[in-house]
Amino acid sequence: MREESPADPPTAFVPGHVTGFFSPCPDDDPERAGSRGAGVTLTDGVRVTVRAAESSADPTLTLDGDSLSMPPVETVLEGLGVADRARVVAESDLPLGTGFGVSGAMALGTALAANARFDCERSANDLVTLAHRAEVEAGTGLGDVVAQARGGVPIRLAPGAPGHGRLDGVATTRRIEYISFGDLSTADVLAGDTAPLVEAGDAALDSLRERPTLSELVAASRQFSRRVGLRTDRVHETVEAVTAAGGEASMVMLGETVFALDRGLSDAGYDASACRTCAAGAHLAD
Amino acid sequence: MREESPADPPTAFVPGHVTGFFSPCPDDDPERAGSRGAGVTLTDGVRVTVRAAESSADPTLTLDGDSLSMPPVETVLEGLGVADRARVVAESDLPLGTGFGVSGAMALGTALAANARFDCERSANDLVTLAHRAEVEAGTGLGDVVAQARGGVPIRLAPGAPGHGRLDGVATTRRIEYISFGDLSTADVLAGDTAPLVEAGDAALDSLRERPTLSELVAASRQFSRRVGLRTDRVHETVEAVTAAGGEASMVMLGETVFALDRGLSDAGYDASACRTCAAGAHLAD
Repeated sequence: MREESPADPPTAFVPGHVTGFFSPCPDDDPERAGSRGAGVTLTDGVRVTVRAAESSADPTLTLDGDSLSMPPVETVLEGLGVADRARVVAESDLPLGTGFGVSGAMALGTALAANARFDCERSANDLVTLAHRAEVEAGTGLGDVVAQARGGVPIRLAPGAPGHGRLDGVATTRRIEYISFGDLSTADVLAGDTAPLVEAGDAALDSLRERPTLSELVAASRQFSRRVGLRTDRVHETVEAVTAAGGEASMVMLGETVFALDRGLSDAGYDASACRTCAAGAHLAD
Repeated sequence: MREESPADPPTAFVPGHVTGFFSPCPDDDPERAGSRGAGVTLTDGVRVTVRAAESSADPTLTLDGDSLSMPPVETVLEGLGVADRARVVAESDLPLGTGFGVSGAMALGTALAANARFDCERSANDLVTLAHRAEVEAGTGLGDVVAQARGGVPIRLAPGAPGHGRLDGVATTRRIEYISFGDLSTADVLAGDTAPLVEAGDAALDSLRERPTLSELVAASRQFSRRVGLRTDRVHETVEAVTAAGGEASMVMLGETVFALDRGLSDAGYDASACRTCAAGAHLAD
């Protein structure tokens, strides 16, 4: 049966996700909290395998071979009642903390793989909700999990987990390039005055709903990042260089990271990574 | 740019979809009409390419090389305002009219590919809504389109297009086998007394929500098909043979067709087709 059911131990693939613009939507209920906004899921992502502990000396979580602690992953395992038994091994194509949704991917991938490994019998929506709550409670993300569960080019119309949030999407596929110069703290940005974010984010969402194309998503994101003043010098210079070369690029929320359509970064002379928009949302690997 | 943007002319892939059980939910508004129920999307599906007409002698639609008329496809093209210009070329892994959602796949694939070809700038939800409406109005399907847009193993909690319907899913991947003996008329079944369908369908949905696994989906579907009396002799015999061999199978709604998990049909001696659950919902091919 090994090749017919999920692999044993089960592995989940979760696409990376870069947000172009967003409006934070806090709520006392973490299932209703989240963000409006839009972004792009990536064929570069995170593979998360969950197996049963062989000894108590096993680290609970490793990412690319290094043992670490990630509160959202631990919260998900506790929510499934398997925190004492599960060992999580993750491999990422993308760096942590630079705006690619790696933390959300770890939480969601852990939920999918642990559910399969320990026969928890939770529905897909329940697992997405568990991971979304854990991310919001940890303060590590506001909208990556629901976007990563959908795949494609998600538009977050209303915040929150399944049953609360509402999603749409840009119906396309495209080559995406990206380059990262470092991290920015999501917590620091959200601790400041968020009214300008909401105003600029909602204006960007209105533009995209009016014209739901990838070019409009990038243009609205560029305007958003200019208005909210989060661009570092390196990000500003890079986005302008891509634009000057005739390409389309914007800043990733939140990282010192730039994403571009097609060969936008390469054509402007940058040594960028390349992947595509990811047709499939988070799923168990065959 | 050919390899970076959607292929030109654009091609959409739409997974096949077999429904295991359902409750029809008619409504005067075709966006609210549909069904509750559950099923499985398939890596076997339909590829739909849309190009501009070269001459008025071009057939509007071909399926596997044969020219034919399909009202839902024509309605979708009219909804996008391109009925006079679009030519649709479809290739299917699955037979038409036997419960695999080929008609829904044609409508949804046409919406995705025509939107890309003619820069219609519709959102993903708008395109799914257009295809769902067209299917409901033509009487060819009640829930395939929204399930095919989602992918995976969709549970239809509430009927209707995006914004009205609600979906969940079984979080798994699996090998699926199927065998078809012929067609059954959806219209004939829905023209009869549908109260027993609703009663049996809602009981099956309650069981699956209680325990959202593929085994439960197949068991609930088997009980549904027995209760509603739609099994033909050949279907009944096949499902019983798979069960006797230790496998899990049920009837496809609506076709004289049986689907099974893993190698259920092969192990019972049938010459079945095989594929897998499809992680991705309907999407443009790269």
